[in-house]
Amino acid sequence: MADAARGPMLIFSPMTSFHSPARFPRGFRCASRNVGLKPEAKDLTIFVSDVDATAAAVFTRNHFPGAPVLLGRETMKGGRLRAIVANSKVSNVATGARGVENARRMAAAAAAEIGTTADRVLVSSTGVIGVQLPVERIERGIVGIAHDLQEDPLVGAEGIMTTDTHPKALSASVGKATITWVAKGSGMIEPNMATMLSYIFTDAAFDAATLDRMLRAAVAPSFNMLSVDTDTSTSDTCAILANGMAGEVPEAAFLEVLTAGCVRMTEILGRDGEGAEHLLRVHVRGALDDREARQIAKSVLNSPLVKTMVHGADPNVGRLLMAVGKCFDCTIAPASTDAWINGYQVVRSGERLAFDDAVVRTALKAEVVDLEIALGVGSAEAMAYGCDLTKGYVEENASYYSS
Amino acid sequence: MADAARGPMLIFSPMTSFHSPARFPRGFRCASRNVGLKPEAKDLTIFVSDVDATAAAVFTRNHFPGAPVLLGRETMKGGRLRAIVANSKVSNVATGARGVENARRMAAAAAAEIGTTADRVLVSSTGVIGVQLPVERIERGIVGIAHDLQEDPLVGAEGIMTTDTHPKALSASVGKATITWVAKGSGMIEPNMATMLSYIFTDAAFDAATLDRMLRAAVAPSFNMLSVDTDTSTSDTCAILANGMAGEVPEAAFLEVLTAGCVRMTEILGRDGEGAEHLLRVHVRGALDDREARQIAKSVLNSPLVKTMVHGADPNVGRLLMAVGKCFDCTIAPASTDAWINGYQVVRSGERLAFDDAVVRTALKAEVVDLEIALGVGSAEAMAYGCDLTKGYVEENASYYSS
Repeated sequence: MADAARGPMLIFSPMTSFHSPARFPRGFRCASRNVGLKPEAKDLTIFVSDVDATAAAVFTRNHFPGAPVLLGRETMKGGRLRAIVANSKVSNVATGARGVENARRMAAAAAAEIGTTADRVLVSSTGVIGVQLPVERIERGIVGIAHDLQEDPLVGAEGIMTTDTHPKALSASVGKATITWVAKGSGMIEPNMATMLSYIFTDAAFDAATLDRMLRAAVAPSFNMLSVDTDTSTSDTCAILANGMAGEVPEAAFLEVLTAGCVRMTEILGRDGEGAEHLLRVHVRGALDDREARQIAKSVLNSPLVKTMVHGADPNVGRLLMAVGKCFDCTIAPASTDAWINGYQVVRSGERLAFDDAVVRTALKAEVVDLEIALGVGSAEAMAYGCDLTKGYVEENASYYSS
Repeated sequence: MADAARGPMLIFSPMTSFHSPARFPRGFRCASRNVGLKPEAKDLTIFVSDVDATAAAVFTRNHFPGAPVLLGRETMKGGRLRAIVANSKVSNVATGARGVENARRMAAAAAAEIGTTADRVLVSSTGVIGVQLPVERIERGIVGIAHDLQEDPLVGAEGIMTTDTHPKALSASVGKATITWVAKGSGMIEPNMATMLSYIFTDAAFDAATLDRMLRAAVAPSFNMLSVDTDTSTSDTCAILANGMAGEVPEAAFLEVLTAGCVRMTEILGRDGEGAEHLLRVHVRGALDDREARQIAKSVLNSPLVKTMVHGADPNVGRLLMAVGKCFDCTIAPASTDAWINGYQVVRSGERLAFDDAVVRTALKAEVVDLEIALGVGSAEAMAYGCDLTKGYVEENASYYSS
């Protein structure tokens, strides 16, 4: 159908080539264990650098940050870390002064085990909100974990999983240095800085201020554009450690690979959103400015009716316009609005085209569904990442606390 | 448990007593039919006043309003109506100039049938977006409908149903006048002015300007605080017709009953949201100002994790704090934040109380679940209305276009 020409080909996937399997930079190792928070699965992870690393981190903007985030903001003032210790199952959020004290005890236990001070250990906790951390189990369980340290980042990823269906790690080279990403995601994800727990390790050498600037630049178009369910976690943490063991690397090259890996990890987290069967990417272009481009992309990505349309491969494409149109404060020109689904045009000039339902159904059945909206208003663009809405999401979250 | 004292008793349900069954004010009648848009169910409704009525309406703020909304804004400039004609199944949205022409033809057909002019007929359409209206079927089907006019408002409600599980009508007395509400709702509901199709009829006498002012005042705390799924329809319309046949009524008394009926209809629409099993009401008090109170109430109401918690009666109450805390730009003081579920306190001073899970589970199993948040920041409050998130919602919306 001539009317439904393919839109401009979009190349979102970073050109960076990732190692297979993922590996650590020089001087980083990890270990994970079950310490009794979960019945059997691993529930505690430690990441360690052989030497002190410069470090930067961004945390959730939620007004009710967990105790580890409160402590972490203090810890990060030093700009140096030797280790990260993280547990799953209990997030240590809404736990008051006792929660903060427990987070401190967890840092101290990890520091004693690896021979450093507590102010060089970043603590994270993920899991149910509003339950006190069984800190004694963590203190007992951490003893001897230094002997388990090994070089596969997936082992560390295993200990921080909650409803994730698989552990998540990536690595890539930049010059003579390596960057490694380890993360967990799944639900309660609309980061407004980073997603969930996301740790980045490199042996490149950077001072803490440069690292902080690069981390924020890499997080903005990646983790900050991820939403599984619009709910912003109280535990979100994204930290980067640079131990310098590979020496200096040009900043521009490093930032490019850093961003590419953050985008790729964002896609992995979106695809593994709770109950997800599709990775959903929404590309908005022709927006008035960056803020409107991001807002409209998130509006389409987060629309339950768009998400269920993708889930059911139901070519109900008018919902795309609905989701754009509900951005009341944005500049929208209906007569110049076009839309594509996986490159197949379904809306032109604000009107639904008389497309072939079967073709759109097939496009919506792809594992990765790209929704592209061209607004024809300005030249700003944004990309948002998420997933479809399924009965699996409802099922997981109707009994998360109880199960 | 002393810690979990009941919060202040909230009286949200309007004290107004509604008629049973609902009836029309003097001079209003309606009829509905199947004209072939749906296989068998009724798909066309007409509401008629015996005499011209003053009228006011509010419409969706979506940037892609349907053709009936575009035409309706023009029609309402006259401030007078004799009739409303509405169809279900096809919403006539994203249909371009032909869609507007079809809406005009629908108004003209109704006007010819009841003996008035098209500029005295408000048109609404609800249903799937992006499909042209089969206007010939409507023109043919409307012939003779004037002979069917009768006095039960539920008959009119039947013709505008989409995924509603029951027709919706209410009526109440104010002095010697009557007010009647007829509405449909279900999905794609986060009105930013009114919900879906909501028609109000009265035999009280008011000029159009007064009617418009009262309608806006009544809609603000009711339909505008309703959200089933955060998605704002492209067809939302709330209109009021006052035919004056009961003479004058004091404005304050009228506004009180008008608002009470709008709130009650909002509750009915929330309870009948797509897939809903609970009516969810979120009451925020102690907010800095009205804007923040409304934003926080909507944030809690719309949180998929809060909605699934209610659905599963899972006492995962930390999610309430998460949903309050993700209002980044609002003034939140964690240490002064309290929360109750159906009067049972679950959070005090930002910390989850050590409550009895079984009691909270029971509270969450009630058909009406009231979540109350006291912020301790200021004195503003707001109430938002919605429902739980269920597999039924996912199922209905994964195949709405195709089924």
